[in-house]
Amino acid sequence: MRIGFIGLGNMGREMARNLVRAGHELTVYNRSRGSSEALAKDGAMIAEHPAEAAGHEVVITMLADDNAVESVVLGERGVIEGMQRGTLHISMSTISPNLSQRLAAAHEERGQEYLAAPVFGRPEAAAAAKLFIVAAGPKHALAKAKPVFEVVGQRTFEIDERPEHANLVKLLGNFMITCVMESLGEAFAVARKPKVDPRIVFDVLSSTLFGAPVYNTYGPKILEEQFSPAGFKMPLGFKDTRLVLQAAEELSAPMPFANIVRDRYLSAIANGYSDLDWSAISMGAAQSAGLAFGGDESHSDAAD
Amino acid sequence: MRIGFIGLGNMGREMARNLVRAGHELTVYNRSRGSSEALAKDGAMIAEHPAEAAGHEVVITMLADDNAVESVVLGERGVIEGMQRGTLHISMSTISPNLSQRLAAAHEERGQEYLAAPVFGRPEAAAAAKLFIVAAGPKHALAKAKPVFEVVGQRTFEIDERPEHANLVKLLGNFMITCVMESLGEAFAVARKPKVDPRIVFDVLSSTLFGAPVYNTYGPKILEEQFSPAGFKMPLGFKDTRLVLQAAEELSAPMPFANIVRDRYLSAIANGYSDLDWSAISMGAAQSAGLAFGGDESHSDAAD
Amino acid sequence: MRIGFIGLGNMGREMARNLVRAGHELTVYNRSRGSSEALAKDGAMIAEHPAEAAGHEVVITMLADDNAVESVVLGERGVIEGMQRGTLHISMSTISPNLSQRLAAAHEERGQEYLAAPVFGRPEAAAAAKLFIVAAGPKHALAKAKPVFEVVGQRTFEIDERPEHANLVKLLGNFMITCVMESLGEAFAVARKPKVDPRIVFDVLSSTLFGAPVYNTYGPKILEEQFSPAGFKMPLGFKDTRLVLQAAEELSAPMPFANIVRDRYLSAIANGYSDLDWSAISMGAAQSAGLAFGGDESHSDAAD
Amino acid sequence: MRIGFIGLGNMGREMARNLVRAGHELTVYNRSRGSSEALAKDGAMIAEHPAEAAGHEVVITMLADDNAVESVVLGERGVIEGMQRGTLHISMSTISPNLSQRLAAAHEERGQEYLAAPVFGRPEAAAAAKLFIVAAGPKHALAKAKPVFEVVGQRTFEIDERPEHANLVKLLGNFMITCVMESLGEAFAVARKPKVDPRIVFDVLSSTLFGAPVYNTYGPKILEEQFSPAGFKMPLGFKDTRLVLQAAEELSAPMPFANIVRDRYLSAIANGYSDLDWSAISMGAAQSAGLAFGGDESHSDAAD
Repeated sequence: MRIGFIGLGNMGREMARNLVRAGHELTVYNRSRGSSEALAKDGAMIAEHPAEAAGHEVVITMLADDNAVESVVLGERGVIEGMQRGTLHISMSTISPNLSQRLAAAHEERGQEYLAAPVFGRPEAAAAAKLFIVAAGPKHALAKAKPVFEVVGQRTFEIDERPEHANLVKLLGNFMITCVMESLGEAFAVARKPKVDPRIVFDVLSSTLFGAPVYNTYGPKILEEQFSPAGFKMPLGFKDTRLVLQAAEELSAPMPFANIVRDRYLSAIANGYSDLDWSAISMGAAQSAGLAFGGDESHSDAAD
Repeated sequence: MRIGFIGLGNMGREMARNLVRAGHELTVYNRSRGSSEALAKDGAMIAEHPAEAAGHEVVITMLADDNAVESVVLGERGVIEGMQRGTLHISMSTISPNLSQRLAAAHEERGQEYLAAPVFGRPEAAAAAKLFIVAAGPKHALAKAKPVFEVVGQRTFEIDERPEHANLVKLLGNFMITCVMESLGEAFAVARKPKVDPRIVFDVLSSTLFGAPVYNTYGPKILEEQFSPAGFKMPLGFKDTRLVLQAAEELSAPMPFANIVRDRYLSAIANGYSDLDWSAISMGAAQSAGLAFGGDESHSDAAD
Repeated sequence: MRIGFIGLGNMGREMARNLVRAGHELTVYNRSRGSSEALAKDGAMIAEHPAEAAGHEVVITMLADDNAVESVVLGERGVIEGMQRGTLHISMSTISPNLSQRLAAAHEERGQEYLAAPVFGRPEAAAAAKLFIVAAGPKHALAKAKPVFEVVGQRTFEIDERPEHANLVKLLGNFMITCVMESLGEAFAVARKPKVDPRIVFDVLSSTLFGAPVYNTYGPKILEEQFSPAGFKMPLGFKDTRLVLQAAEELSAPMPFANIVRDRYLSAIANGYSDLDWSAISMGAAQSAGLAFGGDESHSDAAD
Repeated sequence: MRIGFIGLGNMGREMARNLVRAGHELTVYNRSRGSSEALAKDGAMIAEHPAEAAGHEVVITMLADDNAVESVVLGERGVIEGMQRGTLHISMSTISPNLSQRLAAAHEERGQEYLAAPVFGRPEAAAAAKLFIVAAGPKHALAKAKPVFEVVGQRTFEIDERPEHANLVKLLGNFMITCVMESLGEAFAVARKPKVDPRIVFDVLSSTLFGAPVYNTYGPKILEEQFSPAGFKMPLGFKDTRLVLQAAEELSAPMPFANIVRDRYLSAIANGYSDLDWSAISMGAAQSAGLAFGGDESHSDAAD
């Protein structure tokens, strides 16, 4: 299949490489040309602007946030301009349901097809083609996208016919992850105060009811305070929390847990921790309990 | 071994039965005599008061809450009175670290041994001897208790030498469970507002990062709103949330997620839902989003 | 002075009328022409579009929200188009600091002057020229606006030279008001449960430390549950809470009280209370305590 | 009147002195004898234990917390022992409704009379006989206490016949005060981030809707960060917040604002601020926004 691919960050470049290797004819575009050239060595062609990459059967966008997607798709020489009637745009970025809905409308107006298909998985999973894809949109578009999904992911979940619903589900998934971080952060902080080893607490949890990848991934990071280098940085975690709250707000649905997570991000960012992994919000509970990073209890009151 | 067993509720009676079947010589005590008689058929002897059941090598208490334990252990003709120097009390109830610490002191004063060993598991797990035991106390006492733990549980986690630490870890475990309930409740409520099927949201979660028993147990209950008959009732969930907050308060550790969970329990109880399963607090998010039980959206605003 | 006045809602029409009566030469514009005609009887001229009203020494906008201001000022035949170099736009609406900053930049680019001067006060205060004005912007612009402020308000607070700071202060003021509503709501709910008369609680408060207009205005409304007709509707209270949280978010400042207030608004709106006065969020605490509107305690548990 | 007075702390000694000066015959008791001797110079007699002070027509207790009251009243040689049938105990301490109810029952059993009459006011107000008294209990007991109240306070609010209701109202009043502190803390923190002078924010508030003593007392303290010497220390503020939450919990009433205030206290205490005035919880919002004490912005991110 002839595919345009826009956005060659940590995730996008791995997905694009897998598509090239699977024999698809790829035209790539990235704001900074360096990443494109790396892929050209694997056999991809390089487009000079988004519209050029969009002149194919399928164009995929994998970008950082709403602003990036909005300007690449709707901006000058953007995806919408480059697409033809009947061709398909698969938006795989984590964006707001609101923007996704606007993209759907803009494409529909021009007789273009549109799917939202955000993914779960870190760059390693992208490289290993082990992403989980959450897709929504018209059935025939989903059928057309199948060969793409089969190359980049290990499984596709089809939500329903409304693209923005895939974006909502993706945000809810990230919300669930942040709840795990915060709950572990609180539990470990309480354990540490009277010197109960939080590693034992985690062992109890993960050996009994909590033996899921999300705990196994983040539990040890939080226990060992390994937040650097960041797999996914604070401001990105914040962005997704903001988006889920915004989406919920538009639906008149309060999310008290998300409020607390949002404030953890704000406070971490305000206090200079922007470069840490998003799971470092778990340290908020420790700090408010007078526990310092690294287990060195600076202000411990009558903790024992 | 000659064992006294006090408290034959849903959990206790299964544990006691397993001990009898394993060949231990059991003397049981329960406030209402009916439960004792059922066990007598299995070969247990019946004590007339807690002190009588406590006159053995080991005495186990498995009671509903702090008040019950306090009166059975420290009250007239209580456990402490009946025990001899050197005999062991294993407190398996979910009680406050504070009370556990007081029990430890009271036993120590009399040269008696004391372990806290609360458990994770529902009555079915107790019947199947599949409980997880969280134990803490002096090493020799832990060694002495081993044959008991091997009969009633599938695995024992030894925390450290301070009994009250086992109680704290147990409360933290229950706190983690309530966080799962609330986070699922919020995610499902947000999904339902624009008519995204929450079953698909749950499928995405449990098939990817959240495939742990705690999600697999509570996710479907919450999705199907099957809160009756209750496995563990609202007021018990509330009690444990109150206890973890109280313990954290004594340690000067804020737990913002626990605050929210506590308020869900208070609100559920205040509004007449005391007989439902403790996981019904997940409906709080739905109600505050204008969604009614049973999916019938009574007050839906511009939800679609 | 020749003044353009755009936005003749509950507040704007009273302010405009006071300006006409004070002898200023007013040209008014309102989306629906009816309100303009009422003012024409008082001597105002009617403009056909915002740009026409903006062709004067000073143009005032008093509109409902960010969207209205954005379209009226920056849209086609908007204020910016109609203004000349050196003329002054006074934005008196309650809008986001973010939009205010963008308006400031747009005006500056064209050599036009800009002040933000939102007000505190209900329509009655506007009619009585008793508004409190919170103004910010360049000093000479503040000087030029003085005659306007003296006609419509009882006092002007000059914040500093950055217009968006006035908008921020206005939002913080409304935030403070909502905190009073919520705190009264919680206190009254707790009092009502054991049948302590909340009127006495309010009497104690207002006779001792809390004798300020904000308590005297909202306390009785909340006590008597007089939320209809609304002086300021739910969705407007929600809007301002959203704006203050958004502004704080952009400044990386968590506002936990504002989160709770926001969720009260969302829940009230989701449950069908949009037509009530914004102070009805105080009923959220009562409902979550199992108390019904009107004092009829529907689900009271062991309240006594 | 012959009056026993127990508890000569900052508040109690001023109240006792006023009673002596008004001509009442006082017998005082204080745990540390020094304070009693100071009052003896004013003409008071000194009791050797609480029971001795309680052998009069009226005995007043003014102590630090539940524990102190419980031991002084119900303990050995306590108030209850010393009182005769028909004599009156006026409990003026800020204690839990729960304890107050237990005291009422204990007195009733012995045919003794009991009133709860906690007060609003700082030591200066106590010295000036300007306290506000919140009293509840049987009408004839209230009548008997009137001469006492007239000497120590400027006004008495009679709640109803159940003593514990006065304690609840007192706790609700303190809760309202802490809400003012937190809301000011949040508003000032948000203002400070873009360098809006929080003094102007406060001026706007106090000159318009918020001109009440509670704002005028705490606003300037918070603005100037004058938290030392403490008028009322952190742990006392925490205690009262804990008590109001406990009372509300027993009544099944959630108090989300109180949760946030409680966590501010816990965090302040855990981080070593126990010696500051209780209003220093307002700094929590500043710290979580990356603002340091004293206005020196240590970690400011893109705040401007």
